[in-house]
Amino acid sequence: MKRDLWDNVRAARPLIHNITNIVVANFSANGLLAIGAAPVMASAVEEVAEMVSVSDALVLNIGTLDATTERTMIRAGQAANQAGRPVVFDPVGVGATAFRRDVAKSILQHVRVTVIRGNAGEIATLIGLDAASRGVDAGETRDDLNQIAREAARRYNCVIAVTGETDVVSDGDVTIEIKGGTAVMARTTGTGCLLSAVVGAFLAVESDAMTATATALAGYARCGELATALADGPGDFPAHFLNELGKMTAVELPSDRIEVVS
Amino acid sequence: MKRDLWDNVRAARPLIHNITNIVVANFSANGLLAIGAAPVMASAVEEVAEMVSVSDALVLNIGTLDATTERTMIRAGQAANQAGRPVVFDPVGVGATAFRRDVAKSILQHVRVTVIRGNAGEIATLIGLDAASRGVDAGETRDDLNQIAREAARRYNCVIAVTGETDVVSDGDVTIEIKGGTAVMARTTGTGCLLSAVVGAFLAVESDAMTATATALAGYARCGELATALADGPGDFPAHFLNELGKMTAVELPSDRIEVVS
Amino acid sequence: MKRDLWDNVRAARPLIHNITNIVVANFSANGLLAIGAAPVMASAVEEVAEMVSVSDALVLNIGTLDATTERTMIRAGQAANQAGRPVVFDPVGVGATAFRRDVAKSILQHVRVTVIRGNAGEIATLIGLDAASRGVDAGETRDDLNQIAREAARRYNCVIAVTGETDVVSDGDVTIEIKGGTAVMARTTGTGCLLSAVVGAFLAVESDAMTATATALAGYARCGELATALADGPGDFPAHFLNELGKMTAVELPSDRIEVVS
Repeated sequence: MKRDLWDNVRAARPLIHNITNIVVANFSANGLLAIGAAPVMASAVEEVAEMVSVSDALVLNIGTLDATTERTMIRAGQAANQAGRPVVFDPVGVGATAFRRDVAKSILQHVRVTVIRGNAGEIATLIGLDAASRGVDAGETRDDLNQIAREAARRYNCVIAVTGETDVVSDGDVTIEIKGGTAVMARTTGTGCLLSAVVGAFLAVESDAMTATATALAGYARCGELATALADGPGDFPAHFLNELGKMTAVELPSDRIEVVS
Repeated sequence: MKRDLWDNVRAARPLIHNITNIVVANFSANGLLAIGAAPVMASAVEEVAEMVSVSDALVLNIGTLDATTERTMIRAGQAANQAGRPVVFDPVGVGATAFRRDVAKSILQHVRVTVIRGNAGEIATLIGLDAASRGVDAGETRDDLNQIAREAARRYNCVIAVTGETDVVSDGDVTIEIKGGTAVMARTTGTGCLLSAVVGAFLAVESDAMTATATALAGYARCGELATALADGPGDFPAHFLNELGKMTAVELPSDRIEVVS
Repeated sequence: MKRDLWDNVRAARPLIHNITNIVVANFSANGLLAIGAAPVMASAVEEVAEMVSVSDALVLNIGTLDATTERTMIRAGQAANQAGRPVVFDPVGVGATAFRRDVAKSILQHVRVTVIRGNAGEIATLIGLDAASRGVDAGETRDDLNQIAREAARRYNCVIAVTGETDVVSDGDVTIEIKGGTAVMARTTGTGCLLSAVVGAFLAVESDAMTATATALAGYARCGELATALADGPGDFPAHFLNELGKMTAVELPSDRIEVVS
């Protein structure tokens, strides 16, 4: 973990190109602004490659797909690969339908991704486990999660972030656990999607993907705790959460959140 | 009214599949999470039928249409019919354009809906009255509303919820009025759309559509009143409103809101 | 400036038709409701012309384009021209890609717009200056801004609003500067997009486009200052800002914000 990455993002103001869904587009943009990054959303196949070329990272989120999404995301992802830009992939709800599995598979075949972030069920689906959308959560143990993260990292040759009660980040070799966060975060739509975008911003200022991802996750979870303490309910949690994202710095981020487990 | 349905939704955590518009997608998702339901938004024609099959209710909202919406909504609706899932239809702005009237008519011809929720103008349009988008509101009397609700319920063989200053729910035979709510609610976009989604969640846990709908409307109006008392203006009303939705239980819901009028 | 336009909008409740992007649709709708206008979002090519016919102003925003956007916006814009409705054009990120420049150029060739509102980089792009998305901001001087606004106004025969630290409004002949606003506003996504929609509402009640635009901008900036003073951070700024928009009246709006500079 490099705690001062939170300050580095604010100083560098990286432009993060998001191809994302109609549910979380606003929250993701405001969250990126809160941490000091600049968001851009562009999803027309005619322009995504050029937009990638002026951006510092690309975030692909399959929350609401349509017939052109696969083509658009592959074009954007390949442009990012050619330009050497980091790519985050968020396989939202990939276990729910065959269409999502096909689109995700196609994207991962054609684009080299830097980080995949999802919940346990989504990452399990990517390695062929029979996990329904909400399935894996039930019987999971932390060992299972670590195993899933490791296997997915090896399969896709990238860093995997499995987020939930405890977050697990793995590059297939080293696996680390990140404690923190609160259940309230899961009652706000898009906290996972925004986290993927935040990881994109950290990748834009730190070339070591494990370090970038772990630092982003640790600070994000801390902001969730601080906001939960201030919020009266799910209604005002998002505002408190974005306020905390706006204040998070190296100084605010505890150093004891991360444990290397393998 | 079964007041403990509010607790039942929270216990059952039904998955509500929304095909909805870009304006209210986020608010609808957060509102469903606040009452303890789980939202999923999926609108690709390739996957809606499968998404319906893993969901507990379907909500169709025509707020922002495109060329594929009609086909997608019919496919999803028919899948819900086959699987025995409840379907809520929200004919947003149906009086405003011929295109909306045509799409709504086609959906209602091909899909059996459980509940239609709209404002007076929208429901009036569905039974062929010449009501502009904002038209009926002007000269309406409560008797008119009851008549409109009854006639629409008979025409479409479903439960109709006409929401406004006083809500009217009818299955064509029994008609009930629900008092409550505040004018401030109408100054937040999507309070009607979210209500349709909330009705979907209640239908997922209660097979009597009149009971499910009336209980949802009564509690929703109560949350609006509580939030209005706490809010400084339209800006912070949504946060207070979602907080109240997060707290509403059988205990909080007054029992004297509903009057059977016919 | 006619300060009582803020009250006139509230009294007239104009219906503002927005063809806008997935990021700001909700914020724009709630902002329009806050000032007392009524929003409608409709972007299907099948219905935009009819929706324009029942609306009081049209706002075209190219924040998230797709393959049909150009055709839809031109059809809507031409319907507005024929019906004598004011049209606001917001060239979001027009400097970022060739596709955006082409779509913007085509819209401006086929539709007579009443007001174009953008940041300095966007307006500079429209007159052919080589300004990257975030480019012009760096070395700008106020004289440059005034020159850019004037030239764009003459080129497109409309009123230009360049918004930023100081706002500049020009019809190519008279140019005025509007002071106010805060840097925090730029940390909330869609404050520019909502401002374009607000200008649309003012054009619906005031035929002098310079007066309508300047009055909207001055009050909007004032609301930004009041909200900034109340907000703890970027998270709760939007709620405070919409609250202030809900209260702004002739009485609240200072008279010394506007200076005619040429």
